[in-house]
Amino acid sequence: MLHNLFTPSVQHSLDLIGIFVFAISGALMAVRKNWDVFGIGVLAEVTALGGGLLRDLIIGAVPPAAFTDLGYFVTPLVAAALVFFLHPEVERTQTAVNVFDAAGLGLFCVTGTTKAYAYGLGLTASAALGVATAVGGGVLRDIIANEVPSLVRWDRDLYAVPAMVGAVTVVLCINYDALNAYTSSLAVLTAFLLRLLAMRYHWRAPRAWNRRSASVDVTEETP
Amino acid sequence: MLHNLFTPSVQHSLDLIGIFVFAISGALMAVRKNWDVFGIGVLAEVTALGGGLLRDLIIGAVPPAAFTDLGYFVTPLVAAALVFFLHPEVERTQTAVNVFDAAGLGLFCVTGTTKAYAYGLGLTASAALGVATAVGGGVLRDIIANEVPSLVRWDRDLYAVPAMVGAVTVVLCINYDALNAYTSSLAVLTAFLLRLLAMRYHWRAPRAWNRRSASVDVTEETP
Amino acid sequence: MLHNLFTPSVQHSLDLIGIFVFAISGALMAVRKNWDVFGIGVLAEVTALGGGLLRDLIIGAVPPAAFTDLGYFVTPLVAAALVFFLHPEVERTQTAVNVFDAAGLGLFCVTGTTKAYAYGLGLTASAALGVATAVGGGVLRDIIANEVPSLVRWDRDLYAVPAMVGAVTVVLCINYDALNAYTSSLAVLTAFLLRLLAMRYHWRAPRAWNRRSASVDVTEETP
Repeated sequence: MLHNLFTPSVQHSLDLIGIFVFAISGALMAVRKNWDVFGIGVLAEVTALGGGLLRDLIIGAVPPAAFTDLGYFVTPLVAAALVFFLHPEVERTQTAVNVFDAAGLGLFCVTGTTKAYAYGLGLTASAALGVATAVGGGVLRDIIANEVPSLVRWDRDLYAVPAMVGAVTVVLCINYDALNAYTSSLAVLTAFLLRLLAMRYHWRAPRAWNRRSASVDVTEETP
Repeated sequence: MLHNLFTPSVQHSLDLIGIFVFAISGALMAVRKNWDVFGIGVLAEVTALGGGLLRDLIIGAVPPAAFTDLGYFVTPLVAAALVFFLHPEVERTQTAVNVFDAAGLGLFCVTGTTKAYAYGLGLTASAALGVATAVGGGVLRDIIANEVPSLVRWDRDLYAVPAMVGAVTVVLCINYDALNAYTSSLAVLTAFLLRLLAMRYHWRAPRAWNRRSASVDVTEETP
Repeated sequence: MLHNLFTPSVQHSLDLIGIFVFAISGALMAVRKNWDVFGIGVLAEVTALGGGLLRDLIIGAVPPAAFTDLGYFVTPLVAAALVFFLHPEVERTQTAVNVFDAAGLGLFCVTGTTKAYAYGLGLTASAALGVATAVGGGVLRDIIANEVPSLVRWDRDLYAVPAMVGAVTVVLCINYDALNAYTSSLAVLTAFLLRLLAMRYHWRAPRAWNRRSASVDVTEETP
């Protein structure tokens, strides 16, 4: 059973870690938005579980894991409580949000792809759904926070590419029958590090052809 | 069968009342936003059926009740037509929206929790999904209207807590085998009254710790 | 089998054309919003597949066609690549977006209604879901782009009505056992032409009663 790459307890622990770090990122955004304690809890839950919920609805795994595993539901609340009481100074949160988010991105693109394949999707669809699992929670977070998703903004560092690399790595491993705990961990780390490097060196994706030269109203950025 | 707490016709009538009042709240917001007649209809449908639709997708009750029961579909259109022709002066609508919304909140947190439990979810998950049923339509309404959901705003009166109290009351009744038409009605009334009191006395939820004292740019409000 | 009105290859080709034109509309909006290449791809995918995805989740057709048919997934990427390299001058895109969008609207309201009926929904629910299939992608596009959906804005030309006419035509044909490739094509063309006429002559839907005369703060428009 592909879905259980690791022993069940290791798999479950990794899932909870991914959920926890995404929830931290959601809760910190809610604090920065000056929302109340329920806003913090809601945004933590949505950011942490939204991508997986979407994936489970699409592959027909209902009720979704978010509603059958009490740990999945409680973990974001713990993260929200931590952020509620211990959130660092507002100025210092951006880096923390981003690093936590990168870790969640790496974990979720791998587990999302693996679960989609285990439910019978093709390789391409599995990779696409793995990416959607990884980025879905963040997009929902930005939609609820009434912001343009940072996923699509040209002035944000690469976000989708690391998840795509992680998901494609998993799919290639499946194709060559080489998916195991080691290669999976490698895929997680690759996506995580790529995202960190993208943030460190401000790697960005190009906008539409001929567009960059025409835009004189925006500050010139490293493309 | 837990799902049918009341006789089927009573259950159905309560559902339709909840749908109607939520639809009124959605349609009134569309009027205040100056949308056209289709915007009024769409926002009435989404506000009224969105929470239940989300619940049905999550518990795997497809096609959702919103698409199998003609009354569920037509009721929001009736509400939209009423609002279209008879909407009160714009200045007078806010209170009406809120009271209607409170009634829908009380009804839906109870029926949502009950239906989720009837479909095999655990007690905690049922309560969470009951709350999601009750607040989901309003959140979707605010997202479509391109506003920050009032659910998460610190300067809005308590909204989630009444739904939580209603849902937890139902779950406790289930746990002690005491769920019937009377205790259900009590849970609905409790949530409804709590929401009315929260609006009357401006009960609000705290923002993140240390945050309130640091915010000098906003008007001081009763916490 | 109602779902296959046409020979499978014709049906599939029509689906791909509808997906392609919606994807063009989404990708062009992303270009106008100055998003990066991933934003263009994401908005193309969401606009093209969002309505059908919603429909498939609601009728319980999981995994949705968007994830089982590789062509459905790749087509929006082709459209996004075309727009990325060949997008016309920004000033000229609005008309192109609208005509492409009208074609997708006509195709999707018909195929959406037909598929919903094939999965056992009633006639009214099928028509409603057909309309939701046709307009859903555009609403999701506007939500992700952080705009008020043009569907509900009173100052936009009629959008929902053409889809409703197309969906109701299909439902009437089903009711009188007259649904075939010719009547379906007629329904598609009717919806498409109605939308084009609505854009040409600026047909608009009324806002709430008594509202128009009271609004002195907005420019007077042809109702």
